[in-house]
Amino acid sequence: MSVTDAEREAMRHAISLARNGPRGVNPQVGAVLLSPTGEMLADGWHRGAGTAHAEVDALSKLQPGQARGGTAVVTLEPCNHTGRTGPCSLALIEAGVARVVYAIADPGERSAGGAERLRAAGVDVESGLSADEATALLDSWLAVQRLGRPHVTVKWAQSLDGRAAASDGTSQWITGAEARGDVHRRRAQADAIVVGTGTVLADDPALTARRADGSLLDDQPIPVVLGRRDIPGGAAVHRHPRRLLHRDGAHLPAVLRELRDLGVQRVFIEGGPTIASAFLREQLADEVLAYVAPVLLGGDRLVIGDIGVGTITDARRLAVTSVEKLGDDLLIVATPRQEEKEV
Amino acid sequence: MSVTDAEREAMRHAISLARNGPRGVNPQVGAVLLSPTGEMLADGWHRGAGTAHAEVDALSKLQPGQARGGTAVVTLEPCNHTGRTGPCSLALIEAGVARVVYAIADPGERSAGGAERLRAAGVDVESGLSADEATALLDSWLAVQRLGRPHVTVKWAQSLDGRAAASDGTSQWITGAEARGDVHRRRAQADAIVVGTGTVLADDPALTARRADGSLLDDQPIPVVLGRRDIPGGAAVHRHPRRLLHRDGAHLPAVLRELRDLGVQRVFIEGGPTIASAFLREQLADEVLAYVAPVLLGGDRLVIGDIGVGTITDARRLAVTSVEKLGDDLLIVATPRQEEKEV
Ligand SMILES: NC(=O)c1ccc[n+]([C@@H]2O[C@H](COP(=O)([O-])OP(=O)(O)OC[C@H]3O[C@@H](n4cnc5c(N)ncnc54)[C@H](OP(=O)(O)O)[C@@H]3O)[C@@H](O)[C@H]2O)c1
Ligand SMILES: NC(=O)c1ccc[n+]([C@@H]2O[C@H](COP(=O)([O-])OP(=O)(O)OC[C@H]3O[C@@H](n4cnc5c(N)ncnc54)[C@H](OP(=O)(O)O)[C@@H]3O)[C@@H](O)[C@H]2O)c1
Repeated sequence: MSVTDAEREAMRHAISLARNGPRGVNPQVGAVLLSPTGEMLADGWHRGAGTAHAEVDALSKLQPGQARGGTAVVTLEPCNHTGRTGPCSLALIEAGVARVVYAIADPGERSAGGAERLRAAGVDVESGLSADEATALLDSWLAVQRLGRPHVTVKWAQSLDGRAAASDGTSQWITGAEARGDVHRRRAQADAIVVGTGTVLADDPALTARRADGSLLDDQPIPVVLGRRDIPGGAAVHRHPRRLLHRDGAHLPAVLRELRDLGVQRVFIEGGPTIASAFLREQLADEVLAYVAPVLLGGDRLVIGDIGVGTITDARRLAVTSVEKLGDDLLIVATPRQEEKEV
Repeated sequence: MSVTDAEREAMRHAISLARNGPRGVNPQVGAVLLSPTGEMLADGWHRGAGTAHAEVDALSKLQPGQARGGTAVVTLEPCNHTGRTGPCSLALIEAGVARVVYAIADPGERSAGGAERLRAAGVDVESGLSADEATALLDSWLAVQRLGRPHVTVKWAQSLDGRAAASDGTSQWITGAEARGDVHRRRAQADAIVVGTGTVLADDPALTARRADGSLLDDQPIPVVLGRRDIPGGAAVHRHPRRLLHRDGAHLPAVLRELRDLGVQRVFIEGGPTIASAFLREQLADEVLAYVAPVLLGGDRLVIGDIGVGTITDARRLAVTSVEKLGDDLLIVATPRQEEKEV
């Protein structure tokens, strides 16, 4: 790869600009336009579906002809797709840009091909600059492109012997304050939080991401309840700052596709056991978070029910990513070893 | 405490001699006799129930009168009990010993009081020298004295979601080779290994402590099977190097007392789920070893059944002593927080 110091510096800036954009259906992208001598002419970023792409946002700040002979530095390969906006590759060609440097290729079926189009138009194209940082930024969005659905984390709290509650259904504070705080921090990083009607009726959860003092964190996931049963009018989920999505859950891939189309990149499945087992059974879990409390409960309130394993060789093997002590509890983070399933 | 260097040295020697004795109904004890000027005259140790105590063993190596005015250094308070041998305190008094230094007091109801008797006879008595080392050596024996029964470890292998086997009963190799090796090493440290008839009939285990290559380790625990059902004549337990103990298990404290009277200080309960749950329910578990494999199984083969917990506030809380990675598996070692139960 042959890039100039000015281009390196511009890419760093473009990545930080990209972060200004919202996580959603479209990727977060940043762009910087450089003059033929490497001075910064303009920058831009993508503000979400239906708004200008980053390159076009930057170009819009220049006079016609001002980018001629210059370089566009972009965090993602310029698109080749006419959607609500025209293809960015075309806009750059028309603006007379002589060179394009981007970090990572566009994995989209319809939007990819921008680099080819640019090269065909005689533009000098360079890729891979700061690819790791750009990939990290677009982690969840790239997963959505690959899987056709959001990344799914299934979380539960269990006793060491795999129970979600005592025989009479009581389960409050199986795990301690540190584990609960950790859950809230991770909730805030998700775009949607899913429970079944069973949990809503049993526990009336708020499904908000909160601080230890009960105040709301800045980012709140969309609350989703799955099941045919009605949700009581006074249920706490109705007071969630974001609008509740209530679906029957009969077809989980359809639920995930609907969430994807709402711009959800990360889903946090918070139970109960029936819903968690359904996602595991259908191989729709990309990550498992098991908060294990050092208690034994016995009894019949199992944290995971039938997940379709009949014999030991069919066991769902997990690759453990980390084991962490949270107060008295353990957090085991793991990834199912089978192929991730697309929808 | 005022002790001489010669006495310190003698105590170190006495502790190492004690280790020569067998673990059993009686404690492992070592003794050294010093002349009035601190030279070593003789040493001895206890070779197990029915043989001479350590002090008497040492005295027997001297001429009458040779210990007069000297010092006896003993790892445990000289006994005051006439059993198969006379009280050691009396033997020391009669030998004319002027001073006795011991590490830890005798917790036995009938055997304690030796120090008092010695003092009453004008002997200078000092206690507490190397108490920590002596306590560590007699750990299991002291537990037996306190509880009236052996120390009980309940061990199991489980999937993360608390299953002992898949739905069809298959469970071979839930955990990996390193976890299984660890189990064998710990088996060899136990004096008895207990399973239920359910496990014998399902798995036909050998109940021996083996190396990875299948060869037998030096120390072998007594194999114990609990349950009313018959053990097949061809069962592997019959080929165990030690004689099988088969009891109905209806009264677990009685089983533990019988084992105690056979000199068993440490019992390893290896399941299955019914037997493990019974020991937990009756609060007869001093230590729990959970080998957790990173797999999910679902289904109804639970690693722990009913342990008498009805509601969450009655959960059996454990104090986790360690969490260790063994290959892909985790070993969680823990102690039940409730009072240990005597029998
Ligand atoms: N330990 C934990 O981490 C944890 C977390 C949450 C809850 N809990 C406990 O779990 C208990 C509730 O358990 P639960 O299993 O009844 O709750 P759940 O999993 O929240 O709800 C189960 C319900 O989800 C609906 N559903 C929607 N889509 C489904 C699908 N694809 N497959 C199966 N069911 C689907 C069904 O309801 P419809 O009949 O309405 O269709 C089903 O009865 C409560 O006691 C709660 O305290 C524990
Ligand atoms: N994952 C693991 O760590 C592990 C370890 C061992 C076994 N297993 C699996 O566990 C399964 C066998 O389970 P299991 O529960 O039937 O085996 P178990 O606990 O070995 O045996 C249960 C039997 O023990 C007898 N028993 C004796 N005293 C008892 C008492 N005080 N309370 C209750 N029962 C008493 C009863 O038999 P009677 O009717 O004869 O009186 C009872 O049916 C097998 O599939 C085996 O592979 C798993």
